[in-house]
Amino acid sequence: MTSVPSRPARPSGRVNVCLGERSYSIHIGPGAADSLKLTDYVHGKRLLIVTNETVGPLYLDAIGRWFPGVEVDSVVLPDGERYKNLEGLDIIFSHLLKGGHDRKTTLVALGGGVIGDMTGFAAASYQRGVPFIQIPTSLLAQVDSSVGGKTGVNHTLGKNMIGAFYQPRVVIVDTDTLDTLPEREFRAGLAEIIKYGLIADLRFFDWLEAHLDDILQRDEEALTYAIQRSCQIKAEIVAADETEQGRRAILNFGHTFGHAIETFLHYRQWVHGEAISAGMLMALRLSVTGGTISPAEVNRIKSVFERCGLPTQPPAHMEADDFKRLMLRDKKALDGQMRLVTLQSLGNARVDTQFGETHLNAVLSEACGDSPSLNVAP
Amino acid sequence: MTSVPSRPARPSGRVNVCLGERSYSIHIGPGAADSLKLTDYVHGKRLLIVTNETVGPLYLDAIGRWFPGVEVDSVVLPDGERYKNLEGLDIIFSHLLKGGHDRKTTLVALGGGVIGDMTGFAAASYQRGVPFIQIPTSLLAQVDSSVGGKTGVNHTLGKNMIGAFYQPRVVIVDTDTLDTLPEREFRAGLAEIIKYGLIADLRFFDWLEAHLDDILQRDEEALTYAIQRSCQIKAEIVAADETEQGRRAILNFGHTFGHAIETFLHYRQWVHGEAISAGMLMALRLSVTGGTISPAEVNRIKSVFERCGLPTQPPAHMEADDFKRLMLRDKKALDGQMRLVTLQSLGNARVDTQFGETHLNAVLSEACGDSPSLNVAP
Repeated sequence: MTSVPSRPARPSGRVNVCLGERSYSIHIGPGAADSLKLTDYVHGKRLLIVTNETVGPLYLDAIGRWFPGVEVDSVVLPDGERYKNLEGLDIIFSHLLKGGHDRKTTLVALGGGVIGDMTGFAAASYQRGVPFIQIPTSLLAQVDSSVGGKTGVNHTLGKNMIGAFYQPRVVIVDTDTLDTLPEREFRAGLAEIIKYGLIADLRFFDWLEAHLDDILQRDEEALTYAIQRSCQIKAEIVAADETEQGRRAILNFGHTFGHAIETFLHYRQWVHGEAISAGMLMALRLSVTGGTISPAEVNRIKSVFERCGLPTQPPAHMEADDFKRLMLRDKKALDGQMRLVTLQSLGNARVDTQFGETHLNAVLSEACGDSPSLNVAP
Repeated sequence: MTSVPSRPARPSGRVNVCLGERSYSIHIGPGAADSLKLTDYVHGKRLLIVTNETVGPLYLDAIGRWFPGVEVDSVVLPDGERYKNLEGLDIIFSHLLKGGHDRKTTLVALGGGVIGDMTGFAAASYQRGVPFIQIPTSLLAQVDSSVGGKTGVNHTLGKNMIGAFYQPRVVIVDTDTLDTLPEREFRAGLAEIIKYGLIADLRFFDWLEAHLDDILQRDEEALTYAIQRSCQIKAEIVAADETEQGRRAILNFGHTFGHAIETFLHYRQWVHGEAISAGMLMALRLSVTGGTISPAEVNRIKSVFERCGLPTQPPAHMEADDFKRLMLRDKKALDGQMRLVTLQSLGNARVDTQFGETHLNAVLSEACGDSPSLNVAP
């Protein structure tokens, strides 16, 4: 079993995301920016920090001081996934243009996944591309959108339908910013961390299970390690398949189900981590019908999610037909063929087009309460 | 002097745009698609043709037949530069999503530069990138946006401010489509063709001057050659500098002035080719103040523009201050430093930051009628 490395003054970690000329580093830990000269990553003499009305008041001034000698501008967006659309993006573009920002400006994303996705796509598109720096402040963003360059916005007809693959110059994961993260958001972030163990590293899942109490108490050493290992796993998968032609899709474990839930709820009520938590349980049950995972293993994982206070069933009023309609529209479908990620074994995911419609129907019916059970207690 | 190659049954030309794994070919001439198997460029089993209400009724059915065995969908946008914005783009996205188009769909741009730019950016952004094919139907689009992968939309605060570098899989320049192009649009396209001679190939400019009557009569052989040579020149410049870090900027000869005119007129009244025509004359007069071009050379070029019926002065009610305000906002400015393209000699352009503010002021004042003359007859 992997254990946390012996305690230094303050824990720190670094992950290199290897993508040729688009390579960059993620610096992780409390005060992760302290030892860095961040102005090296600023292209011109100006930058625009994009943040939201929740994170901005907490960190905007402090982050501005990370860039001495640079003219720091900022724009504060409303907080929430429902502003992650073309209109929200236009607020950033208008601010850039009114402020006279040219092609040598640098964008800084200060906030959670929504801010990161929007700022990244704004950077990809503003004058056909300006550099950007990511400072993710939610646990989810730190382990998910900080790696891999997926940027974009939602459309009323589907999540993340408009965007670009665009890599940041550097990512700063200052775990001190987690001090102000609401408990519900923190636990939602854990869903993605658990995902990395399930899809690619059983030993990491074992470690998480063993250290879950430390993590839930936000112990900075355990957190730094959990974030670093998550970013490492994602970086390895992304480096092998930057634009998701094949294996990168395993990162979507639980996400096709989860996106259906989010779309059904119009991106309200449940946060992303909660939706994919229920989604992962559904994908696990589909793996059970395929015979690769045992009901006992599903129950083991389910209890980890429960300890995190994460949902293990879809919303009560959602029906099997809602899932089927929304999942077919998800962009993981190709030429009308639904692709789902299932587990071949714990710690080993695969993209699965052979799962069988009957099995899927059974999982959906069971999850939506239409049938009593499918070998797994609901 | 280069002459048109001896006449085959029907003239045809081909230009290879060499950009590594993003390389593609441009096929030029009357019936240019006849000898091609275009379905080879379609990624999945479906495509969406994006066109406008002017071009669609003329060519949509015929173009659809170029893709046997493929499910052809289409969306018809309103015609005009003023629809080239995020809202116009959203019409394409909504159509794609409502029609259930997935990541394996292919987009086809059927129309002029506006359709090409919007469709290209829609292809770059839809589900973070799907393939696209360009079928430019205006002379301007055939020699300009068909090479180089600049895609994007306008913002109310500036032209082409939002976009991506994104290359098509293949470009079909069927010169038969020029039969229906209005005379004013045709002549505006000539402005860009003349530009290629001025910035990079004096012999081509000589040839254009000698064959201008044939071209104005839309002789298919002269046109095929003029388009091919224009695409070749642009392809060579783009291959050396895909994302415009340096030399590619010479393609903007006359454009910083021209964009100021277009922005001033809110993209109405003057078409792009007319604006850059007046803009090129201003850039030539700036070259005269720098001592690299003689007044006689400017007059020679001016008379070619006049034979084409293109404007050689900015709009009468535009003032020098309007230019300065709008040009500084143009994205060719870097860190507040204005960069303009001037000619070192006929057929040889350079990016110029040393032109001198006094010289620029003199050119602006003279062009806007504030001062009587600047060695060149107005």
